Amino acid sequence: MPLSPLREGTHPLSQDEGRYLLKALRLGDGEKLEVFDGDGFYALATLLGVDAGDAYLEVSKPQEAPRPELELYVASATPKGDRADWLVEKVTELGASGLIWLKTERSVVIPKPGSKKFERWARLSDAAARQSRRMRVPTLEGPLTLEELKTFEFDHRFVASPIKESDTPLPSPLKGKVLIAIGPEGGFTDHELEQFKNSGYNLLWLNPHVLRTETAAIAAAAVLTAHL
Amino acid sequence: MPLSPLREGTHPLSQDEGRYLLKALRLGDGEKLEVFDGDGFYALATLLGVDAGDAYLEVSKPQEAPRPELELYVASATPKGDRADWLVEKVTELGASGLIWLKTERSVVIPKPGSKKFERWARLSDAAARQSRRMRVPTLEGPLTLEELKTFEFDHRFVASPIKESDTPLPSPLKGKVLIAIGPEGGFTDHELEQFKNSGYNLLWLNPHVLRTETAAIAAAAVLTAHL
Repeated sequence: MPLSPLREGTHPLSQDEGRYLLKALRLGDGEKLEVFDGDGFYALATLLGVDAGDAYLEVSKPQEAPRPELELYVASATPKGDRADWLVEKVTELGASGLIWLKTERSVVIPKPGSKKFERWARLSDAAARQSRRMRVPTLEGPLTLEELKTFEFDHRFVASPIKESDTPLPSPLKGKVLIAIGPEGGFTDHELEQFKNSGYNLLWLNPHVLRTETAAIAAAAVLTAHL
Repeated sequence: MPLSPLREGTHPLSQDEGRYLLKALRLGDGEKLEVFDGDGFYALATLLGVDAGDAYLEVSKPQEAPRPELELYVASATPKGDRADWLVEKVTELGASGLIWLKTERSVVIPKPGSKKFERWARLSDAAARQSRRMRVPTLEGPLTLEELKTFEFDHRFVASPIKESDTPLPSPLKGKVLIAIGPEGGFTDHELEQFKNSGYNLLWLNPHVLRTETAAIAAAAVLTAHL
């Protein structure tokens, strides 16, 4: 169960937490469960006080889960409407460590930081991380320009390309901090592709067909995480 | 433009077709365009009669587009609600030649052949094929049992597995008729996995996390088509 804040000691149950543990999971006094904070920490907890009508968790010392060998960051133009929601949900399920919205020359949607959209994406990402039993919820940043993206450190940088390049096979297994950049409808401009090239990005061919932004992002996450 | 039926000779424009060519694309008399039937045939057509107020297409002899080297069939349990719609749209964009719904032991949704759902999926698939500029719209079949699926011929058969098997690398490039089977929420049963094994399926590991059915189907299509 997600628990916030995750701290060693006594954690009184909120109404939602109580309903979930006692009604939905039907746990009884003395039963043990795993709790986690979504930031990579987890702990064993014991459900107590149920019989006395005042249930709480006794949380043991939180441990940090090992970091994944591949930390994948998806930097993507923002698709319209619920296509962005799907992108967030699916790249989370597939194991992305972070999602960065990109401001590109052909971008139509540029979400405002702190807006309701960001709140919804955080909720979706949180639910998807739980669904796929991930210890860490991906970070969500942006929108950033390509210039701003340059200041982040990565071990490998890729840009999704519709042109098949046979000369840049993926390292297998793929490890470390990896970035994949995904363009908007209509793709990156030649000027942007030039910027990527000058910043040490490799082209990553994904599919013989024209993919929508969210499809390319999900496909890239699937292909890169399968190379682990 | 999609055209049905696609036949050599004179094709009077329907109201929709006229609106699309004359209003949306603003084509004039004598202009040429490519028309296709979604079953792999295409032809060059000339727009005529516009100035006379009675526009029609003069269609040349239809040609068959070469079949793709990889013909990917996704056989999947049906996810609930709009998750099935997304599966249909995304595996079409990624280039699947066919989608087969599976009746599995843990299936919750078993769509009825000929139902409104199948009509909607056909429309979605058609639109997605056009979006990704595919000449062939995927076939949509099922729901089939694993027994019934056995009667189809494939060059390679895979079943998506959450367990990493390092001993069955994908052939690269992957060619011919390829089947990937995707289980329902909760996965295939041991009995079903035994059936797959006895029918010559290889396990295909996709991702370190627990994936929803539609995510696994889309990820599998992405990984397999990227191996072309």
